[in-house]
Amino acid sequence: MAQRMIVIGGDAAGMAAASQARRRRGSGDLEIVAFERGHFTSYSACGIPYWISGLVPDRNQLIARDPTTFRNEFHVDVRLRHEVIGIDLDRREVVARDLTGGGEVRERFDTLMYATGATPVQPGWARTDARGVFGVQTLDDGAALREWLDADPAPRRAVVVGGGYIGVEMAEALIQRGLSVTLVERDEQPMATVDPDMAELVTGAMRGLGVQIRTGLAVTGLEQRDGQVSAVVTAEGPIPADLVVLGLGVRPNVGLAAAAGLPVGPSGAIRVDRRMRVPGFDDVWAAGDCVECLHRVSGLPVHIPLGTHANKQGRVAGINIGGGYATFAGVIGTAVTKVCDLEVGRTGLRERDAAAAGFEFVSVIAQSTNRAGYYPGSRPMTVKLIAEKPSGRLLGAQIVGWSEAAKRIDTLAVALWNEMTVDEMSALDLGYAPPYAPVWDPVLIAARKAVDALAATGR
Amino acid sequence: MAQRMIVIGGDAAGMAAASQARRRRGSGDLEIVAFERGHFTSYSACGIPYWISGLVPDRNQLIARDPTTFRNEFHVDVRLRHEVIGIDLDRREVVARDLTGGGEVRERFDTLMYATGATPVQPGWARTDARGVFGVQTLDDGAALREWLDADPAPRRAVVVGGGYIGVEMAEALIQRGLSVTLVERDEQPMATVDPDMAELVTGAMRGLGVQIRTGLAVTGLEQRDGQVSAVVTAEGPIPADLVVLGLGVRPNVGLAAAAGLPVGPSGAIRVDRRMRVPGFDDVWAAGDCVECLHRVSGLPVHIPLGTHANKQGRVAGINIGGGYATFAGVIGTAVTKVCDLEVGRTGLRERDAAAAGFEFVSVIAQSTNRAGYYPGSRPMTVKLIAEKPSGRLLGAQIVGWSEAAKRIDTLAVALWNEMTVDEMSALDLGYAPPYAPVWDPVLIAARKAVDALAATGR
Repeated sequence: MAQRMIVIGGDAAGMAAASQARRRRGSGDLEIVAFERGHFTSYSACGIPYWISGLVPDRNQLIARDPTTFRNEFHVDVRLRHEVIGIDLDRREVVARDLTGGGEVRERFDTLMYATGATPVQPGWARTDARGVFGVQTLDDGAALREWLDADPAPRRAVVVGGGYIGVEMAEALIQRGLSVTLVERDEQPMATVDPDMAELVTGAMRGLGVQIRTGLAVTGLEQRDGQVSAVVTAEGPIPADLVVLGLGVRPNVGLAAAAGLPVGPSGAIRVDRRMRVPGFDDVWAAGDCVECLHRVSGLPVHIPLGTHANKQGRVAGINIGGGYATFAGVIGTAVTKVCDLEVGRTGLRERDAAAAGFEFVSVIAQSTNRAGYYPGSRPMTVKLIAEKPSGRLLGAQIVGWSEAAKRIDTLAVALWNEMTVDEMSALDLGYAPPYAPVWDPVLIAARKAVDALAATGR
Repeated sequence: MAQRMIVIGGDAAGMAAASQARRRRGSGDLEIVAFERGHFTSYSACGIPYWISGLVPDRNQLIARDPTTFRNEFHVDVRLRHEVIGIDLDRREVVARDLTGGGEVRERFDTLMYATGATPVQPGWARTDARGVFGVQTLDDGAALREWLDADPAPRRAVVVGGGYIGVEMAEALIQRGLSVTLVERDEQPMATVDPDMAELVTGAMRGLGVQIRTGLAVTGLEQRDGQVSAVVTAEGPIPADLVVLGLGVRPNVGLAAAAGLPVGPSGAIRVDRRMRVPGFDDVWAAGDCVECLHRVSGLPVHIPLGTHANKQGRVAGINIGGGYATFAGVIGTAVTKVCDLEVGRTGLRERDAAAAGFEFVSVIAQSTNRAGYYPGSRPMTVKLIAEKPSGRLLGAQIVGWSEAAKRIDTLAVALWNEMTVDEMSALDLGYAPPYAPVWDPVLIAARKAVDALAATGR
C-alpha cells in the first residue's frame, strides 16, 4: 500500500519538496496531499510589490506552478483554502479546516512536510477592522491591496510602516502608482539589513524619488473614520493616510508545530538538521520561512525568510523524502534589492552582527564605478567590506550603486563562502572591459583598502 | 647616492611599478627614469574601440595619468618618444633612441623594469606602405585610424581581419560609425575565447547588427590603388576595402629581452617568478603583456595580455622594488566583452583547453534569464560550465546574455579560483530579487545541471 506524505503549506518550500519527492517515488508508492490555506500555490511573494506598482501587469505571472499543474503532472492532491489547525504526531494525523465549504477533514500521514512559512509581525495597534490596512505577505494580501487602490475614490495618501525590504519596495511601488507616500521607521535608518552608513545612501535615493521618510518614529495606533483608516498615530502626531501598508517584518509561523511538540530554536523558528528533518522526529520534515538554519559565518542559527532558501530547502527535504540524499549547506545572508534606481546588495555580517558574534574586525568603504570612468553610463558604486582582525577573513560585504551594482554582491558572497581573506581577494582574476568595470574592479579596490586598514592596525 | 630604476615601457605595467616603487622609496633614495616610445603614458588601450566609435568623445579620457602627473607628483623622469634599442646587463645600461630629436642616450640602472607590452601579429601580407591599414594596439594607432575615418572622402567599406576581442569590438565600432563592415576570420567562428557553441550566439548577434561575417577564410594579401588599400585578398576572391583593421592578436614584445639574454618561456613571453622578478637576474623585473604567468587551473604558463593583469603585475613588481613583499597569484583566464548588446564572459578553461591539459570533464549548457521571468526586461542568459570528471571541480565557465550577463562571470571566477565543485556551487547563497535573478539563479541552475551530468556518467 502506498505511503502518504502530507504537506502543510503550498508555497515554495512545500511544493518544491512535493515535486522532488514525486520525481523519485511514483504515486503507487507515495500519495502526496498538500494543504494550502490561501488560493494559490508556488508563487513569487517577492514579486508582489511589482504587481502592485503595475510593472508586472498580471497576477498570474507571479505563479510559478498552479494547482492544476501539481495535480495533473505531479499527482499531488492540492487542497486550497484548507487550513491545518492541528497535528497529532502520535496518531500521525492532521486536522484541516475547509475555509470555503466549512467543516473539518482529518488525514493520516506517514511523512509530514511542515512548510507553513512566516506571518507578518502585527503589533496590537495594527489589529483593526478598519478598511485600508494591508500586509504584503501573500498573493491574497496583494489582491486586497490592488482592489483598494482601484476603489473610488482612490486612496491618495499612503503610509508605509517599517523600512525593511518590503516596506521600501512598497513605498516605491506606491509612488509609481502616483500616491503621496510616507515611510515611517522606528530606527534611525530604513534598510537595517545594511549598516547605517550604507543605508544613508538608500534613504537619500528614496527622498529623491519623493518618499517622505520619518525615522526614529514609532507608530502607536491607527485612526479611522467611517470604517476606513484615516491616519497612523505617532508620538509626533497623526500622519493622515487613506492606505496603510504594514511592513514590520515576519515571524516564523510555528504555532502548530510548537503545539505538536516540535522543537523551536533560539531564532524562534523550527529546528531542523542538515537534511531538513526535525531532530527527534524521523518522519517530520520542515523547510522554508518557518525554519532556522545555520549562518556559515557566525556559526549561529538564524531565521532568514527568503524565497531562494525556501526553494533550496524544500528541494533538499523532497530529495530525502524521496529516498535520495541531500543536505542544506546553510546561508551567509546574501540579499539584493532595488530601491528606485538604486541597487543594494549585502552578504555576511553587518558590523553589529560581527560585534555580536564576538569578532574583531576592520571595515572599509571604497568608492568606485560600475564601468570605466570614461565609458558612457559610468555611475558611482560604493563597496563596504568587513574583515576579521587579524586574519583578514572576509566577514561581510555591502554594495550600493546606481547601475549593475547589486548582483556584484555574488562575487563577494562566493569569496565569503570560501572564507577568503581580503589579501587573497585582492589577487582575484575578475572580468575587465571598459563597459563593465574600471581596470581595478570595485571589489579589488575595496579588498586592497581592507588590506591597508588591517596593516594600519599593526596586525 | 640614489639608486636608479629604469622602466622600459610607460604604460600600465611599467608605470604601476614606478608609482608603487616611489610610494615606498623617495627620490633621494631611488631615481626613476621611464622610456616610452609612444606619445602617451598609462592609457586604456581597451578603450580605443569606444573612442573610434565615438562613444568616448575625447582621447584624453582614456589616459589614466599623463606624463606631467608622473613627473610632478611621482618624480618619475618620463621620456616620451624614446625607444630603448639595447640592454647591456653586464654594464647595467640601456640605450634609447630619441624618436623626435634624433640621437641616442645611454643610461645606467641599478634596477630594470621591463614592461614593453605586446606587439600586433603582422603576417607578411600585412606589411604594406598602403594607407588605410591599421592596428589598434596603441593610442597612436587609434589616432591614425580616427584621422583616416575623418578623411575626405571618408572610407565606406571596412574589413576587419581577425575575430578576437579587438576585431569584434572594432567591427561594432565601425558599424556605429556608419561604415559597411566585413569581418574575416580564419577559423570557423570568431570569438575563439569561448567554445564554438557559445561563439555561435555572438556571431548571430553581430550579423543582426549588420556585420558581414566570413569564417573559415584566410586573408592572403592586400590590394592597393594610388597608395591606398583597396581590398583584402582571400581564396574566395578580393573583398573591397577603404579601411582595413588588423586584429590578428598580439605577441609579447620580447625582442630586446631575448637579445639581452633574459629567459623566454614556452608561451613565448618572458619568464618571471611570483614576485615578477626575472629568474636568475636579481635586479631585473618584468610585468604586463610581455610576460607569462601561471594559469591556476591548467598549471601551465600562459600569455594573457590584459590591462587588469598588467596593472596587478606592475604593482607587485613595484612593491618588491620598493622593498616590500608582494606576489602575483596567477590568472584563471577571466574576460568579459560586449558585442553589440550581447554580453560575453568567460573564465577558466574552454573545452579544448581542458582536453589539451589532460582533464576529463563534462560540459553543460543551461538556459535561464537575467531577471525573474515576469519582471520587465527579463532576457535570456546562457551559462556553460565545464567540470572535471569525476571530482566535479569547476574547470571553466562561459556566459552569453543580452543584459546584466557578462559580470556574472565573476561569481563563477571566484568559485573556480577556490576550486569549488559544481555540487558545492549548487548550494551557494547568491542574491535573489525579481529585478536581478530568477529564484534559482542561472549559476545555480547550471551547477545543478552539471551535477546531474556528472551523475549520469556514473562517477
